[in-house]
Amino acid sequence: MRPPTRTGNLVSPLPAPGSEEHFDTLLARPGLRLERIVSHLHASPPGFWYEQADDEWVLLVQGEAELAFDDGKVLALRAGDHVTIPAGCRHRVARTGRDTVWLALHVTPEATAPDS
Amino acid sequence: MRPPTRTGNLVSPLPAPGSEEHFDTLLARPGLRLERIVSHLHASPPGFWYEQADDEWVLLVQGEAELAFDDGKVLALRAGDHVTIPAGCRHRVARTGRDTVWLALHVTPEATAPDS
Repeated sequence: MRPPTRTGNLVSPLPAPGSEEHFDTLLARPGLRLERIVSHLHASPPGFWYEQADDEWVLLVQGEAELAFDDGKVLALRAGDHVTIPAGCRHRVARTGRDTVWLALHVTPEATAPDS
Repeated sequence: MRPPTRTGNLVSPLPAPGSEEHFDTLLARPGLRLERIVSHLHASPPGFWYEQADDEWVLLVQGEAELAFDDGKVLALRAGDHVTIPAGCRHRVARTGRDTVWLALHVTPEATAPDS
């Protein structure tokens, strides 16, 4: 029997603020990837849009943020909010506060055969 | 293009404290299930052990808890702590505080051990 593994704490310690967001993969399996993202006053570059092949379930663990979508909709998120962003849904990070921590679960879309 | 979905907030509102823990499935796909668990001074019944067919990655979102394992190990968890519990690893919830919120990701075990 494999023992349990304490894999860490999502909010402590945080990486020192830098010019880029920090991405850490916590768990990766065929068809899924779980990652922590740490933002600190970051935003996506002007005009940049994420347009992902995977569905994404994302939780704002700590801090504050705004997600913008290309239909003009903006979602203001506070700690505990979670959002599902379907594959192909163009979005960007419009704003983040200090020490903002996300948990993102990327999963292969349903009814789409994984292509490798 | 499917629009984004605000699926809720993990910590607000919480269900009223009751005699049982609350389990809500947030996302279910072949091979994975993401759920919120709300505990409020709950513990597993004496002598009860979880012994699951799936691997579980679990995050303590809010509150405090202790997980016990059948080798005698006890993990005291605080908010932000996350633990991977492999399939078949016998464990129980030894103690939880008030308004304790977990996020649990259950995934089908890998067919072969990860190459290390």
